[in-house]
Amino acid sequence: MIVVFILKNLISLLLQLFLYHIVRGGKTRNRWELESLLSGEYSMDPEEGPRGQEAASTSYGASPRNGPKLRLGRRFSSDEELLDTITSKDPVLERAEQFTNVNMASERFQSSSTIMDTLEDLPPGIGQYDDFHTIDWLRDVARDRTRHRQVVKKKQNGCLEYIKGAHDAWSGWMCVLLVGIIAGCLAGVIDIGASWLSDIKEGICMDAFWLNREQCCWSSNDTHLSGDHCKQWYSWADMMGVKSNGGDYIVKYIFYMLWGCAFALTAAMFVRVFAPYACGSGVPEIKTILSGFIIRGYLGKWTLLTKSVGMMLSTAAGLSLGKEGPYVHVVCCIGNIISYFFPKYSKNEAKKREVLSAASAAGVSVAFGAPIGGVLFSLEEVSYYFPLKTLWRSFFCALAAAFVLRSINPFGTDHLVMFYIEYNEPWYLQELVPFVLIGALGGLLGSLFIKFNIKWCRYRKTSALGKYPIIEVLVITFVTTLLSFPNPYTRMNSSELIRQLVSRCGPEDNSDLCGYQRNFTDPQAYMSSAYVGEGVRRALWQLFLALVFKAVITVFTFGMKVPAGLFIPSMAVGAIMGRMIGIGMEQLVLANKDSAIFKNMCQGGCMVTPGLYAMVGAAATLGGVTRMTVSLVVIMFELTGGLQYIVPLMLAVMASKWVGDALCKQGIYDAHIRLNGYPFLDNKEEFTHTTIAADVMRPRCWRYGMEVRNDPPLSVITQDTMTLEQIEMLLKDTEHNGFPVVVSMDSQYLVGFVTRRDLKLAIANGRKNVEGVVSDSIVYFANQIPSNMVGPAPLKLRKILDLAPVTITDQTPMETVVEMFRKLGLRQTLVTVNGRLLGVITKKDVLRHIVQLQNQDPDSILFN
Amino acid sequence: MIVVFILKNLISLLLQLFLYHIVRGGKTRNRWELESLLSGEYSMDPEEGPRGQEAASTSYGASPRNGPKLRLGRRFSSDEELLDTITSKDPVLERAEQFTNVNMASERFQSSSTIMDTLEDLPPGIGQYDDFHTIDWLRDVARDRTRHRQVVKKKQNGCLEYIKGAHDAWSGWMCVLLVGIIAGCLAGVIDIGASWLSDIKEGICMDAFWLNREQCCWSSNDTHLSGDHCKQWYSWADMMGVKSNGGDYIVKYIFYMLWGCAFALTAAMFVRVFAPYACGSGVPEIKTILSGFIIRGYLGKWTLLTKSVGMMLSTAAGLSLGKEGPYVHVVCCIGNIISYFFPKYSKNEAKKREVLSAASAAGVSVAFGAPIGGVLFSLEEVSYYFPLKTLWRSFFCALAAAFVLRSINPFGTDHLVMFYIEYNEPWYLQELVPFVLIGALGGLLGSLFIKFNIKWCRYRKTSALGKYPIIEVLVITFVTTLLSFPNPYTRMNSSELIRQLVSRCGPEDNSDLCGYQRNFTDPQAYMSSAYVGEGVRRALWQLFLALVFKAVITVFTFGMKVPAGLFIPSMAVGAIMGRMIGIGMEQLVLANKDSAIFKNMCQGGCMVTPGLYAMVGAAATLGGVTRMTVSLVVIMFELTGGLQYIVPLMLAVMASKWVGDALCKQGIYDAHIRLNGYPFLDNKEEFTHTTIAADVMRPRCWRYGMEVRNDPPLSVITQDTMTLEQIEMLLKDTEHNGFPVVVSMDSQYLVGFVTRRDLKLAIANGRKNVEGVVSDSIVYFANQIPSNMVGPAPLKLRKILDLAPVTITDQTPMETVVEMFRKLGLRQTLVTVNGRLLGVITKKDVLRHIVQLQNQDPDSILFN
Repeated sequence: MIVVFILKNLISLLLQLFLYHIVRGGKTRNRWELESLLSGEYSMDPEEGPRGQEAASTSYGASPRNGPKLRLGRRFSSDEELLDTITSKDPVLERAEQFTNVNMASERFQSSSTIMDTLEDLPPGIGQYDDFHTIDWLRDVARDRTRHRQVVKKKQNGCLEYIKGAHDAWSGWMCVLLVGIIAGCLAGVIDIGASWLSDIKEGICMDAFWLNREQCCWSSNDTHLSGDHCKQWYSWADMMGVKSNGGDYIVKYIFYMLWGCAFALTAAMFVRVFAPYACGSGVPEIKTILSGFIIRGYLGKWTLLTKSVGMMLSTAAGLSLGKEGPYVHVVCCIGNIISYFFPKYSKNEAKKREVLSAASAAGVSVAFGAPIGGVLFSLEEVSYYFPLKTLWRSFFCALAAAFVLRSINPFGTDHLVMFYIEYNEPWYLQELVPFVLIGALGGLLGSLFIKFNIKWCRYRKTSALGKYPIIEVLVITFVTTLLSFPNPYTRMNSSELIRQLVSRCGPEDNSDLCGYQRNFTDPQAYMSSAYVGEGVRRALWQLFLALVFKAVITVFTFGMKVPAGLFIPSMAVGAIMGRMIGIGMEQLVLANKDSAIFKNMCQGGCMVTPGLYAMVGAAATLGGVTRMTVSLVVIMFELTGGLQYIVPLMLAVMASKWVGDALCKQGIYDAHIRLNGYPFLDNKEEFTHTTIAADVMRPRCWRYGMEVRNDPPLSVITQDTMTLEQIEMLLKDTEHNGFPVVVSMDSQYLVGFVTRRDLKLAIANGRKNVEGVVSDSIVYFANQIPSNMVGPAPLKLRKILDLAPVTITDQTPMETVVEMFRKLGLRQTLVTVNGRLLGVITKKDVLRHIVQLQNQDPDSILFN
Repeated sequence: MIVVFILKNLISLLLQLFLYHIVRGGKTRNRWELESLLSGEYSMDPEEGPRGQEAASTSYGASPRNGPKLRLGRRFSSDEELLDTITSKDPVLERAEQFTNVNMASERFQSSSTIMDTLEDLPPGIGQYDDFHTIDWLRDVARDRTRHRQVVKKKQNGCLEYIKGAHDAWSGWMCVLLVGIIAGCLAGVIDIGASWLSDIKEGICMDAFWLNREQCCWSSNDTHLSGDHCKQWYSWADMMGVKSNGGDYIVKYIFYMLWGCAFALTAAMFVRVFAPYACGSGVPEIKTILSGFIIRGYLGKWTLLTKSVGMMLSTAAGLSLGKEGPYVHVVCCIGNIISYFFPKYSKNEAKKREVLSAASAAGVSVAFGAPIGGVLFSLEEVSYYFPLKTLWRSFFCALAAAFVLRSINPFGTDHLVMFYIEYNEPWYLQELVPFVLIGALGGLLGSLFIKFNIKWCRYRKTSALGKYPIIEVLVITFVTTLLSFPNPYTRMNSSELIRQLVSRCGPEDNSDLCGYQRNFTDPQAYMSSAYVGEGVRRALWQLFLALVFKAVITVFTFGMKVPAGLFIPSMAVGAIMGRMIGIGMEQLVLANKDSAIFKNMCQGGCMVTPGLYAMVGAAATLGGVTRMTVSLVVIMFELTGGLQYIVPLMLAVMASKWVGDALCKQGIYDAHIRLNGYPFLDNKEEFTHTTIAADVMRPRCWRYGMEVRNDPPLSVITQDTMTLEQIEMLLKDTEHNGFPVVVSMDSQYLVGFVTRRDLKLAIANGRKNVEGVVSDSIVYFANQIPSNMVGPAPLKLRKILDLAPVTITDQTPMETVVEMFRKLGLRQTLVTVNGRLLGVITKKDVLRHIVQLQNQDPDSILFN
């Protein structure tokens, strides 16, 4: 019979693989990219090593990487093709013809609004971004407003246009509504699937194998539910016919381990084969993407599918990980895919990030059933630019998702909150001392976790270990299942563990945690504290082991190549710690009930609720790991319903953050961003140095006309003297991603800025379509062409010129520059002195500078 | 006996007045300023009319107003003097000596960090702002970081410096903690005072007149509390010896009106005499201040005292107003005063705004006992720049305030939430229809309220009515008390009304609202709906009257010259509407209990909870008035504890916002900001026009070298050719608040920017203290002085030059410019083309431009 089920699973697996290959048309990723992606090297190509660094030191602007990564984006990503508007070049070039030959001479005194209005006439290729590039928020936002104005203008042109306009106005809401609904549905499926898989480890429903234990027992109308058993539910020991007590245990143990390893292996294989981006929690990458970076395929449909299936499997495998981070990633994938259907969002990277912000809120919302907490999480932790309009949409999205998920009701319980606490006891001022202690311990645990985890991840990246991700997953799963089965507190689901720990002992509770020496004759006495009995002593010992085990194993688990979040594991660790301290406090108060300190707590039985301590501990440790503050407290409220415990929670989270920040400045997500070298300009950290723009710009030290370092001079284009050939040479010789356009080589007064991508497109189009354009043609960026011009036909490119580049002076303090990069979302800024162009500062330069000031190796950062 | 109490009150009033005059040293404000302030004209001086406009059309930068306003700030404001660091000029000038004569020639190749490091050497006068001026965030933030760096550097210089450094690091937390604690205490005092005054209207405690009714009855150990009466509590009718039923009513009526008018009169007098700024809710002004505007004295200690006393009086008077907006103002005053003790905040306007953001969160926190809601209110509605660090501090501050207030427990109840709902009934999908309806109605009511209130306020400003604020208050109070006494729902406290409306009818409830035809034999049946009885019918009628009355009177009340908030009145209106619709829905379901639509709601008694509808209605109307979203929902949770009703609340708030935004774009606060013409650049509105910087800058249309309008040319200073006399003439002839410094008059390439204030200070100092400086001295802003210079000693002022002014090109779209003004908090930006200076855009120009594009009169805005 076992064989039947294993076969069934295998068949379904093969079927999926088969379907996948039909859909993908037989394409597979080549070996290299998978290796590099799985081994975490996708952030920095070792092959490119010296060349890449060299290029980085001279190029300003995101240089297009010619390494395998770009090819990956170009060649194999069928999902990216779907979502990418620039699929072929020919239509672009055909349409580009229209604009390069507009006669610019007439522009001189025309309405100033023309330039903005005609932006939309540009071919679609212009204004888009390549993979691994930084986006230009100011330009994207300006483009969207231009589009919006055109829609509004057209609205008067008839009914159809009016409907289109209305559709455009509502598409933002429609989009987040769809994201919310789909997120809710998918979360329901994932929850049900994970719960079923989790139960499969222990046994099977004989009548209907697709039911989990709870549903199985419920459908068999078996009213006498003695915890584990009902008629229809067969444990694997039952199936094997093993009846003896010892044999029973061993069979269960073996099956627990076997299934765990099988699930983990499947998850790792899925990630490896289908979507390498589906590993980890995804939150660091999403933070980077939301800060204005392009990682094509990271939010594609294959990532979505793989991560959804993978997170069910990895959770069910019994590994020490949660589904929360992955939920954020999955819902962001949904957001990205849905936004494809709304041109307003799909064609504008800055606008798309609004949808993604809302989606990340919905992710936390479905993970915890906490819509408000989700919005605050998105605001505090994930999002970079969070205008108020996005706040409102995020709330809508999070609410829709939570509502749909609750309507699906995947667990069959009507609980509105995950870890509902039924008690309402007051807390006493004296208890603030242990609460602060718990907070400090939580901060300590969190910081230690971050440090060790980062060390382990760095070791994985740099050593041979990174080459065997699947073996790593298997080994960790083997160890985890081996060690966690004997201890009931590690064997059970982490969510279930937290639920038990934050609860209070009721009169009918006979678990170990409630094994107190109670006075059974007085029902009132149940509410008050009692001396520990045998059960609690055993529980304490097991909890201690569970604490150590979970804390250690999570360090190794987070960062493996399976979908893995760490909200639940860190909360579990914290809840265990809190519960233990809570029991300690309870006994302390009980032992000193007549002392002056505790007297007021012991009127008619001493009142200490260890469950409250567990709740506080969970919040404190999670705070220590992620450094969330307000959002964390709100999530705890929504998880437990304990609105009355705001002061203890807040105090503990505060203590945790302070201790954590003192030990290690960054939260786990920021630490992973740094580890992976993503180009993320943190908007929480303050820039506290005294450097000025002149110290950072490239080329260096042109200050006061003196070249100090031997940086190559700035590559500029003049507005009306360079020939097509010269510009093509410049494009070939340099890797810069954009070029300032100046009045003349002698007086380098700034006219504008043109990006490499736009320039290439326009030149290719000019050569092909504009009559008379040859290599000797002068390329004009000026708005007038001298009437007495001789020679071949000129190429007029003013339209692709950004006439409003952001400039700063060389004396601008870097803190102002950093502020501008953060707040305006710049790609680069031009440095001038007395109007003369001196140099360029790109986001990359800023990041490199910050890292250098922290005495770290600037080459650990991926510069794009 | 009555006489005794009236006398007592009078004496205490006189005593206060006396003390006040002692403290103020007999100074009084002159008549003009009070008149203008009270009549709402402090935003625009009518006397200055044409001249002011003329000046505004030519000056860029905040021109110092020579009108009475400035004198007000200078001459009479003893509180402002306390909080103003620039009290006298002499010490400034003495210290200014040190920096003007630093030899700048040696600066040429010195470390780039010097310029920033020496910023702190500047005398305190430089870098400060005048009253009614806009602050420069970038510069202030840079100044704070410089200060911070110096503190960190000094930390190694010994123990004392180390302690100073530690104090500096903690002062942010200390400051918000103090603000929170003081806010909590003050709120406790205000709550107790308002409750006592409110009860005084009805009667008095014979033994101890300082007790309110509840405390009185409680202290007299009178256990049989039959609602109104206990032995020690004498109503005014009892005191007068009137026993007959009719006479009793009339005496009560008369005393109710008398006391109401007396309280309102006192409040209005207080505002008029002591602090004209203490009127209204204060939220629009605080929004303006937080957006970077200086209104000296608005957050001073006299405003604090007057507003605290005034809000007790005006609430107790029975007017249709709340304490919530005033609480925000009062706590912001506390924040401002406390920040005075921390130089880090008192000397830096940008940093001070961090404390004020936290204080406004604490204000809502104490008003509703809703710390999280307060933080979100501060984030969503009040604050302009809200970095994450401020979020965290705001939470701390709000929490401290709420904790202290709860510990004081002013009402003697242990309720954690104001309008605690004890029910937990589910809601059904069908109910979403009425919820959305309530939301839409709430949005409609809110928009109508805004429209009529703004119309009335505009009428008040422009007509003779504005000259008699006290008479207006008296008349409105008279009408309010006259009409509200007969109706129990208007006579009672608005908070109490809301509490009753959101509650469910319990078995022992025998109020009119619960007068159903219940089945008294079956206790279970109490939970389900029943047909309306006589009581409910009467209540419905009275509620309808109360709804109309409250909705109308609030329009006239909000904007009067007494402290007045509108959270509670709008919630009351909404709660009445919701409750009425709820009862309607209840009867509808009951009448159609067998229909397919309502069948699932009527299993074992129909389940409709009118209280829930009232809650939803309160949220919807408040949403319609203020256009808050997430913060509103969170405040409702914290007010009612009804976390399970998130979907109904959210839907209603959403519907309300949509309907409201369709009818009238701005919330009440933004509408009042616009009405009063505060220079507030809204960061919620999108700028959707196609203009570019060249259209907005002054002087106009220098584009392409052609002067189209006859604006005077740009006033600039050259870096090394102008004499002291020339600059002094320039200062005299123009009113600009700052001057660009250029290379030379012919080639206007930009060197830097200098503010009028700094320039004046430095010149005065130079003339006085630098040897050899005469009118013919050349003023040098360049960093080199030619060695072969002849003539009198030069004045070197490079140190006061801002070498990093923000510049844009003339082609920059205005949406980008607006974005930069909002996000970077600019005061002005310089417009260049090809490096050449063309003009200037100030915040004022941007605001004027936005208003012009909306086809409104730009002169309705106070340009500073």
